[in-house]
Amino acid sequence: MRFQRLLQMRRLATTAPLLRPPTQTKTNVRTMAGSGAPMPELTQITDNVQRGNYAALSDKDVTHFEKLLGKNHVLTEDLEGYNICFLKRIRGNSKLVLKPGNTEEVAAILRHCNERKLAVVPQGGNTGLVGGSVPICDEIVLSLQRLNKVLSVDEVTGIAVVESGCILENFDQRARDVGLTVPLDLGAKASCHIGGNVSTNAGGVRVVRYGNLHGSVLGVEAVLANGQVLDLMSNFKKDNTGYHMKHLFIGSEGTLGVITKLSMLCPHSSKAVNVAFIGLNSFDDVLKTFVSAKRNLGEILSSCELIDERALNTALQQFKFLNAPISGFPFYMLIETSGSNGDHDEEKINQFIGDGMERGEIQDGTVTGDPGKVQEIWKIREMVPLGLIEKSFCFKYDISLPLRDFYNIVDVMRERCGSLATIVCGYGHLGDSNLHLNVSCEEFNDEIYKRVEPFVYEYTSKLKGSISAEHGIGFLKKDYLHYSKNVVAIDWMREMKKLLDPNGILNPYKVLN
Amino acid sequence: MRFQRLLQMRRLATTAPLLRPPTQTKTNVRTMAGSGAPMPELTQITDNVQRGNYAALSDKDVTHFEKLLGKNHVLTEDLEGYNICFLKRIRGNSKLVLKPGNTEEVAAILRHCNERKLAVVPQGGNTGLVGGSVPICDEIVLSLQRLNKVLSVDEVTGIAVVESGCILENFDQRARDVGLTVPLDLGAKASCHIGGNVSTNAGGVRVVRYGNLHGSVLGVEAVLANGQVLDLMSNFKKDNTGYHMKHLFIGSEGTLGVITKLSMLCPHSSKAVNVAFIGLNSFDDVLKTFVSAKRNLGEILSSCELIDERALNTALQQFKFLNAPISGFPFYMLIETSGSNGDHDEEKINQFIGDGMERGEIQDGTVTGDPGKVQEIWKIREMVPLGLIEKSFCFKYDISLPLRDFYNIVDVMRERCGSLATIVCGYGHLGDSNLHLNVSCEEFNDEIYKRVEPFVYEYTSKLKGSISAEHGIGFLKKDYLHYSKNVVAIDWMREMKKLLDPNGILNPYKVLN
Repeated sequence: MRFQRLLQMRRLATTAPLLRPPTQTKTNVRTMAGSGAPMPELTQITDNVQRGNYAALSDKDVTHFEKLLGKNHVLTEDLEGYNICFLKRIRGNSKLVLKPGNTEEVAAILRHCNERKLAVVPQGGNTGLVGGSVPICDEIVLSLQRLNKVLSVDEVTGIAVVESGCILENFDQRARDVGLTVPLDLGAKASCHIGGNVSTNAGGVRVVRYGNLHGSVLGVEAVLANGQVLDLMSNFKKDNTGYHMKHLFIGSEGTLGVITKLSMLCPHSSKAVNVAFIGLNSFDDVLKTFVSAKRNLGEILSSCELIDERALNTALQQFKFLNAPISGFPFYMLIETSGSNGDHDEEKINQFIGDGMERGEIQDGTVTGDPGKVQEIWKIREMVPLGLIEKSFCFKYDISLPLRDFYNIVDVMRERCGSLATIVCGYGHLGDSNLHLNVSCEEFNDEIYKRVEPFVYEYTSKLKGSISAEHGIGFLKKDYLHYSKNVVAIDWMREMKKLLDPNGILNPYKVLN
Repeated sequence: MRFQRLLQMRRLATTAPLLRPPTQTKTNVRTMAGSGAPMPELTQITDNVQRGNYAALSDKDVTHFEKLLGKNHVLTEDLEGYNICFLKRIRGNSKLVLKPGNTEEVAAILRHCNERKLAVVPQGGNTGLVGGSVPICDEIVLSLQRLNKVLSVDEVTGIAVVESGCILENFDQRARDVGLTVPLDLGAKASCHIGGNVSTNAGGVRVVRYGNLHGSVLGVEAVLANGQVLDLMSNFKKDNTGYHMKHLFIGSEGTLGVITKLSMLCPHSSKAVNVAFIGLNSFDDVLKTFVSAKRNLGEILSSCELIDERALNTALQQFKFLNAPISGFPFYMLIETSGSNGDHDEEKINQFIGDGMERGEIQDGTVTGDPGKVQEIWKIREMVPLGLIEKSFCFKYDISLPLRDFYNIVDVMRERCGSLATIVCGYGHLGDSNLHLNVSCEEFNDEIYKRVEPFVYEYTSKLKGSISAEHGIGFLKKDYLHYSKNVVAIDWMREMKKLLDPNGILNPYKVLN
């Protein structure tokens, strides 16, 4: 009986390929995002931002920086790409981009800026979604692009040392060369920098297996606002010598210091990776399937993602090269396993799927261990957020909610928005209670904006959720911080900021208001 | 061929029990440690500690606290157990122990102490090994004993909320009741408090699998020196709303605030646990076996411990109820696997052992999946440190070293100490590069002390290791902090301390000097 049902799970390996290979190149992910969107107005104007009491950039400053870095690494023209955020929502008006080549140069830049009271925005791959990595007014852009080296990878201990401007995918490739993997994976991997990931405490699709960056990052080198280099590097899993200050730089979005180097614990890459893409009839079945995955797949579970019907269909309409292996269900889950023995893992995953089908929780699906096909299924998940951005204007929320209430907000919001919204959908990292709620409309619209915000934050706050699960606070969410952090905590954040950056030159207009 | 060799691995399950059951009761671990040791002198005298500029406790203060907590929870007599450290090395002279029953009482106590400039030492289970949890002069002891409740355990998300004075073993039992496990395990589990564990960023035997507490602790409630309650609790794996300040309280040993509550991510407890106890001929073979364990056991590897011959033999001599399943090797490893499928795990572990024996790296050993016998083998490892303390005076070091140089220091130290030392041995958490180096002698001896220190720290520092991998700095290592932390970092630690505790009332004489 079960065997017949299992047969319904069409093993990609034994059928004609359902998916055409993706045609994207490495860098497309970034350029594509805003391909159709018009150039936004300056944020300082649209958002009525009062410029801080910073000095104005002078020719003398530029000459100083040219002497320090060489003319090639001091840009004063064609700065659009550095001024506009990934979502084409925030646009600053910086007149200067600096590209230091090492920690000492970063330190010298900040020392000068601190003395002169020039504001600075550190920038990695500029893939952030809350406007944290672009200038708001005329801050100098400090690009970490040239700090792009993987300095060492120890295949025995799994510890890698890397400069902050290294692109995540390149770092991962170097780790894979010696049988390791970077414990962080997200859609923007071809563009984002590991330093930016750490500065925003990026989450992604592997947190369910490898935990968050506070656990994986073993050491950090950060340059403080005054130009001091704070060397908190460690090449050991255990180091209990004094305060664990490195964590202040993980997730503070460049407002307390600029990360220039870090060490990270990289797990062994798995010999076997399997991905199941399954269809389910209700969110209740989704929850039951998640619990079953935790219990039955246990230590090999490496991702547990949810995509609802509307999110999937938008991606499929938008990117014709995608081709979902199943259709017609209100919910889909992408479940990945990674393990050291392919036969064992296959047995576990088949048992898990068989049980789920027998109980009527899993309706249909595909499971594959073929690396190419695993990648094709992941591509569907990765293109979901881009499909929504590409199609129309999109209000995006990134919240943590109790699992029992995880999906309700999508239905509630759909009702609130009614015909004003074209699509209200949800997807995200179910395994981490992290929902990406999206509300799409033809173009930005104040009426819909007021229906969505602050309601979404109030709703999340009532459930004691997090109003920013993984994207951070940046510029876009700083007015909403109090929905997740109490007054005492926010006051102490201000004290930390004052202590580490008394002139407030580092990434102003972000995180705190 | 391989099968015959595997037969040499005597499955405990199929032979008569090799180990007699341990006779310890839950609390023996603590009382036993110093059973023979004489009462130490007051540390203020032996170590010539200049008392800080704190107020002297008055009768009025005691009356104030009695009114606040009730007379039963204000102790002024029989305070020996609170004044002397686990190792009977540090002895303070506190005249007052306070036992608050909730966060508000902790806050009221600290508010009063801060206003009056009375120094305070927070105390959990008092099992620390660096004198961090006992008074040095006459500090008031703030015992967290009564904050001992597990507030909630969510079996779906794995998130538990617990008060800081809960004993680790009790917390773990509550987690196990719903199929979870606390991701922290150490020898003192029957006495230590989870709040103390978090305050010292305790490591233990499962870090190789579950990572450190910075990854597992999701939220913290801490009371600051001024009595403010800093609520940084979170019940989510992902919460990126502002600075991640909770990490300042993880591992700062009660010098920045008193942890009163925390939330922790607890993995599902494994359906199958296997332990192998193996003998090896050289440290080179130990290293090869570790690499093979990482590769072949992968996601099910949950502990990888090393015990050298002298460490094992001391424990066996000291505790006759222990009975090692093999003998005659210079090195022993305890390797544990935890997984969701017993058959799969057994196959993996047999393959790993078979391969190791075939290559001549593993000489002999025992492997068992029987829960009682697993516990008996663990008891051998757990009694090693106690055996050394029990036998004679013992200089104990807890260092992280590069794996290639991991064991050299034991040989080097043995040669340095010559006949002055009775035993120089090493054991510890090989999987985390964490060595416990022990130098034993009949009694404390200044000549041997000078041979050992600061040499051991200089040696560690040259290899860029950590002079305190998991025990912390406390009182005993504060003069050596600079061997692992640079001047800039130590200066910033001082700034943090000044910001959070301007009167320096929290756990003075510790961490910073």
